[in-house]
Amino acid sequence: MCASSRVCKMATINTSEENTLLDNQSSSSTDIKPPYLINSEPYSVAKQLLSKIDKCSSSSQRESLNSITSEKISLMTASEQSSVVQPLLTDLYQISMAYAYWKANKHQEMATFDLYFRKNPFGGEYTLFAGLEECLKFIRDYKFHPTDIDYLRTVLPTYTEQEYYDYLLQLDMNNIKIYAVPEGTVVFPRIPLLRIEGPILKTQLLETTLLTLVNYASLVATNAARFRSAIGTEKALLEFGLRRAQGPDGGLSASKYCYLGGFDGTSNVLAGKLYGIPIKGTHAHAYVSSYESMDDLTERELCDRKSGERRPFADLCLKYLNELGPILKILPEQTNKGELAAFTSYALAFPTNFLALVDTYEVLKSGLPNFLAVARALHECKYQAVGLRLDSGDLAYLSLEVRAKFREAATKFNIDYFKDFNIVASNDINEETLVSLEKQGHSIDTFGIGTHLVTCQKQPALGCVYKLVELDSSPRIKVSQDIEKVTIPGRKNLYRIFGHDGKALCDLLTKYDEPVPQPSVKILSRHPFSDQRRAYVTPTSVESLYKLYWADGEIKEQLPSLKDVREYAKDQLNQLRKDHIRDLNPTPYKVSVTEALFTFMHELWMKNIPIGELD
Amino acid sequence: MCASSRVCKMATINTSEENTLLDNQSSSSTDIKPPYLINSEPYSVAKQLLSKIDKCSSSSQRESLNSITSEKISLMTASEQSSVVQPLLTDLYQISMAYAYWKANKHQEMATFDLYFRKNPFGGEYTLFAGLEECLKFIRDYKFHPTDIDYLRTVLPTYTEQEYYDYLLQLDMNNIKIYAVPEGTVVFPRIPLLRIEGPILKTQLLETTLLTLVNYASLVATNAARFRSAIGTEKALLEFGLRRAQGPDGGLSASKYCYLGGFDGTSNVLAGKLYGIPIKGTHAHAYVSSYESMDDLTERELCDRKSGERRPFADLCLKYLNELGPILKILPEQTNKGELAAFTSYALAFPTNFLALVDTYEVLKSGLPNFLAVARALHECKYQAVGLRLDSGDLAYLSLEVRAKFREAATKFNIDYFKDFNIVASNDINEETLVSLEKQGHSIDTFGIGTHLVTCQKQPALGCVYKLVELDSSPRIKVSQDIEKVTIPGRKNLYRIFGHDGKALCDLLTKYDEPVPQPSVKILSRHPFSDQRRAYVTPTSVESLYKLYWADGEIKEQLPSLKDVREYAKDQLNQLRKDHIRDLNPTPYKVSVTEALFTFMHELWMKNIPIGELD
Repeated sequence: MCASSRVCKMATINTSEENTLLDNQSSSSTDIKPPYLINSEPYSVAKQLLSKIDKCSSSSQRESLNSITSEKISLMTASEQSSVVQPLLTDLYQISMAYAYWKANKHQEMATFDLYFRKNPFGGEYTLFAGLEECLKFIRDYKFHPTDIDYLRTVLPTYTEQEYYDYLLQLDMNNIKIYAVPEGTVVFPRIPLLRIEGPILKTQLLETTLLTLVNYASLVATNAARFRSAIGTEKALLEFGLRRAQGPDGGLSASKYCYLGGFDGTSNVLAGKLYGIPIKGTHAHAYVSSYESMDDLTERELCDRKSGERRPFADLCLKYLNELGPILKILPEQTNKGELAAFTSYALAFPTNFLALVDTYEVLKSGLPNFLAVARALHECKYQAVGLRLDSGDLAYLSLEVRAKFREAATKFNIDYFKDFNIVASNDINEETLVSLEKQGHSIDTFGIGTHLVTCQKQPALGCVYKLVELDSSPRIKVSQDIEKVTIPGRKNLYRIFGHDGKALCDLLTKYDEPVPQPSVKILSRHPFSDQRRAYVTPTSVESLYKLYWADGEIKEQLPSLKDVREYAKDQLNQLRKDHIRDLNPTPYKVSVTEALFTFMHELWMKNIPIGELD
Repeated sequence: MCASSRVCKMATINTSEENTLLDNQSSSSTDIKPPYLINSEPYSVAKQLLSKIDKCSSSSQRESLNSITSEKISLMTASEQSSVVQPLLTDLYQISMAYAYWKANKHQEMATFDLYFRKNPFGGEYTLFAGLEECLKFIRDYKFHPTDIDYLRTVLPTYTEQEYYDYLLQLDMNNIKIYAVPEGTVVFPRIPLLRIEGPILKTQLLETTLLTLVNYASLVATNAARFRSAIGTEKALLEFGLRRAQGPDGGLSASKYCYLGGFDGTSNVLAGKLYGIPIKGTHAHAYVSSYESMDDLTERELCDRKSGERRPFADLCLKYLNELGPILKILPEQTNKGELAAFTSYALAFPTNFLALVDTYEVLKSGLPNFLAVARALHECKYQAVGLRLDSGDLAYLSLEVRAKFREAATKFNIDYFKDFNIVASNDINEETLVSLEKQGHSIDTFGIGTHLVTCQKQPALGCVYKLVELDSSPRIKVSQDIEKVTIPGRKNLYRIFGHDGKALCDLLTKYDEPVPQPSVKILSRHPFSDQRRAYVTPTSVESLYKLYWADGEIKEQLPSLKDVREYAKDQLNQLRKDHIRDLNPTPYKVSVTEALFTFMHELWMKNIPIGELD
């Protein structure tokens, strides 16, 4: 294959000037589709559109085509889910308990379980609920495989009855009901996120897997929302955590739920394919190290984007590097020429998407001048570079220094867009780093965030629990010496109460058969555990938070696309008062119960605690 | 279905007395197969053995059958691997870089990458290497699917050449080589765990996925080893973390690698099926709450294990509860009768495996007396209860109190084994809890550990990196202002040097073509970064740590079973001096380079750093 014949194909690119223009200043966080990193579109749609897209000569046409059709994507059509999500992905005791229920002929008793958490993560006062769609898929596809049963036979005692295995083999989740708050809802401690109703054997079997699917999804979505909140809506946030995630699927879930929580894209290609998340990326240090000098370049020419004329691109890079010496006050001969060669070759491969990683050797003395030299040479060939990435050092300082040099180069070269090159930063960033960067000032446009985001360094688990609250129409309570661990018994409904300003005032749990709270009608709301804490609330509006998602063996609600869930989550956060969201000492949001539920609960509580005797 | 007819089948159980005897005092940590929790055997073997086992009348025969055959299990036969481990589970920049390499006709240049980490996790001084087998499976099965290519077409710029896609579609990893230290080896910062050799395009494409597979596996295996080290070898450690893991596959990986790191079993049924890990479990609080009184029992009789005679089991439980009043100094009428009913029904379902969760209401006033009443009734029917589980409160205090009551009951009932009932504890336990419990004294036999173990609360990510060290026979270095981030260039070999006492003295990296260090021959070993730190070492023995695992398109080494890897890891830890392993201020283990490698590295380093100019 002749390298120069390949390069000549470049002359046929019909890319409009607008495509490569930097436009990130004007866009809001959700609209940011930085043109400088490579964009993706949802695979499921993209496939159908491929032929159409191929015929589109202008990329702006392509953009609009995609934005129209991306609305149609249903998440449930994502072609794969982790194969490990199956009935055996559970704790053994679920299967033992199921046997004991079955053996006692108790397995058909109708149970209600609540799935909820007791404390918001990360020292905050809110949580984003996520993972519902995966729960519904799990329930829809619930089926023991014959090899599962063969395995269980080797695990349970030999006297376990054959009919039990037969029973498991034909088991499905068709006669259970799942009520839940919609995915992406802002939620709080003690409110049941899912209410699961059905025969106790079945509802019990779901516990571990539902917890696994909700716990991490909600945790990492909340983490993403906090990162977003720390940096504001103007900057782009990209999730780069796959390599440090807790297992392959941990990485995939992280990409999905960080997007839900307000990130703009991911580096994870499979997440792009499966979930339609925009994917982004440039090159690594290894690419830079793979070149030692300009002599390593096998191809040195680039065709002018407009005229198609062959230009001596590598020589142009060297020429402009020399011109940059006095502008940047550096010694051009001391920049690393392997790095320059790497940048040159990368620009030859991606002339419309040149974003250089500049810290392999030394940012200000080598990476920056080499980047600017290649950017200037691209300009000469009518291409526009995108920017650079910083992956080490003091990001605030370096970004400000780099921006200053961009401005000087823009002036000296008389090319205005040079001052606006994108600066991407990606070195071990956590929420505190973002808060601190905002305070001290920086000139970063895009953050690539990995380890601390996806592993949730600050708190790596959300403590969701799954508790029996009703059986055979009779309420159940789990008491504990630790008051926070006491469950709120019975089947309940859940309402969000809004005030005049459209902001949420509190959440209210009611007994199942209580009337729906009405606007303008005063209610007494009580703290579930503390006698003294109570208040009258007069709602301006009331939202019932539960929807019936699963019944009669089918999913009852049209599930929104991931992108729509992401928008919904953003709206949800906007419904909260700022003091619930702020990073320092946020105000707790009130979750209360009605007078009737309070009394009901406390009577049952007393009944279930033995009275001690002092001796 | 008639419940009592079911119960009568119990009379046909031919369980020898020995099966239900508690024997955990005498066993070492790896041998602990507590009979009180339900045991599993590897599915792949179990399936073949099923008919044989079914014919075995005594469980001790069954035990020995399994222990013989479990040696034969090859991990590679595990029937499933997470479907998300595939070529697209990578960062987009790998695919962009691959295109740039291909475009520059550089893609066939032979590269060597090192995969290593820079710092031991959890403030410790050692790490267990894990994840190798999953890496090899990934490489063996590496293949882009046509839909992957269709998706990439929508992601990469439109001018990306068709031949590149054709090239990807036919790509396999047959002409790369993987050298690695064996899975389960104790490893240290900067030693390459994997050395990957092959065309740069291919070796680059592997980066993210290999990191994902090694990072968490090694992290959680190390965490498990630290928990084991904190509690010693006498106690049983069970992993209960699935519900809090970071995603479903995070849970599955946790179960596998915690077993590797020294745990005795897991609650995760799928991990049992796929990896042959012993699985354990009893019942949850919900099971207890599902009963309100003794009237809820549909079945009240149990057949005597020896005579087959029907016994009024529920009444026996109530009778013995009354007898326990004065023994335990409690009011029998105040124990929760729903709890007693739940224990009774559970014992009816699993008379040979009765282990009760006793903290649903109140441990000492309700759970413990109810448990002892059922245990005494089981004894009456010639069954032996197993023990109880504590899931809240002060575990040290409660376990000691409970043990004291066990002793009193043993004396009063004149049943010796009552004093040795197993106490399982499982409430938010982390490494520090274990250390503290050991210091203050406790009477716990088995720990069930979840959240903090599997999410690695103390440090949720291991920072493995993947660095280019050689290309086209020429060494590459990644310099950095942070000395710890400088790479050790070139292809290298790795040796572990042992002293007189059989303990490891240090690890030694050599240039690829240097002679192998010899026993009794003095070598100068140098700190890789610090001029002043050097020492002469005279090995008693030398172990070459690398094996060639992948070449010519096949796995070159017989991969050991997970159980064998676990044993190997234990031996590895025994080869370390205790001061490297202790939890408080452990001594760093030395990783050194030869004089030749030191000089080579530092010359290249100087060459790659621009000399600044002061102005």
